[in-house]
Amino acid sequence: MSTETDKQVQNGVNVDALLGARDALSKAPEAAKFNWKASCKWMSGTHSQTSIQGFYGLGSQQSHKTEFTFDTDHPEIFASEDKGATPVEMVLAGLAGCLTAGVASIAQLRKIQLRSVKATLEGAMDIQGILGIDSDVRNGFDDIKVTFKIDAENASKKDLEALVAQSQKRSAVFDIVANPTNVTVVVA
Amino acid sequence: MSTETDKQVQNGVNVDALLGARDALSKAPEAAKFNWKASCKWMSGTHSQTSIQGFYGLGSQQSHKTEFTFDTDHPEIFASEDKGATPVEMVLAGLAGCLTAGVASIAQLRKIQLRSVKATLEGAMDIQGILGIDSDVRNGFDDIKVTFKIDAENASKKDLEALVAQSQKRSAVFDIVANPTNVTVVVA
Repeated sequence: MSTETDKQVQNGVNVDALLGARDALSKAPEAAKFNWKASCKWMSGTHSQTSIQGFYGLGSQQSHKTEFTFDTDHPEIFASEDKGATPVEMVLAGLAGCLTAGVASIAQLRKIQLRSVKATLEGAMDIQGILGIDSDVRNGFDDIKVTFKIDAENASKKDLEALVAQSQKRSAVFDIVANPTNVTVVVA
Repeated sequence: MSTETDKQVQNGVNVDALLGARDALSKAPEAAKFNWKASCKWMSGTHSQTSIQGFYGLGSQQSHKTEFTFDTDHPEIFASEDKGATPVEMVLAGLAGCLTAGVASIAQLRKIQLRSVKATLEGAMDIQGILGIDSDVRNGFDDIKVTFKIDAENASKKDLEALVAQSQKRSAVFDIVANPTNVTVVVA
């Protein structure tokens, strides 16, 4: 940790606002109930486009400043047109973004000045599962490995390991991937 | 199912190639071992950018035609700059794309001609978890609901329900979300 106590740590995270929100929501737990949304439209073949803008939280409808759209597809080696990342790569992107945002937020709280954070993710998958070759092989990832490289002004390797561990502990996507989530799929 | 047996069903999925791949990989299971990759770079605050291009499969390094990049961030109500979808919304986009690609592929196999497929996804989350207010509240989604609206030329409601059920059964992202996956996070 820093010994330069006069220096302001600035990772671009508004920790006061987050601590304020924590305080406010601990007194109004109903407002903490969020509902995240996505709308997907099939384009052709394995290509789809998903739009994200509205969500519910703090007791009312909310909206991102703009709509975010994502194309997903399969690559050419699966006889598809490769018009977007694969759906499983989207999950890796979500996991990466979640853990990295956590690292920045917790660094701010712990007064660790970050210079750079990079994460590489690898998700091993035996596609005998999705192809229905072997029913003992799962469809999803066998295993995901995330490797962080963090350059900070004022943190030891141990500090950085603790930072990453805490990010993992509070990460929504880490939890979604590591633990089971109930998914209901219906046809309207 | 269609009674117009002369008519070619065309959903843009090359089922022959997929069946060929299944046949080939059942004889060469080592080639079915894939490794999907993502590289994430912290930008500032909760904003990160993830790049996806290379992956490993069929026994060698592979590459998407282009690099796909995704910005993730938190919305303004969390005192962030909202420069991208949230990481949890990325997971919804992955789930949407995976199930929809499955619907199109299985429809092709079952000779169901699709006109349109839309899916809306809702992921409920109590943010008391990620804010650390209540340790009994999980960080991830409590529950995800996916609602498909499918317009097909030649399929009953029952056919469509069977189609969606089969897509779910073979979906990589459905499996990743519904079942636990081991995630190892290290600091290099």
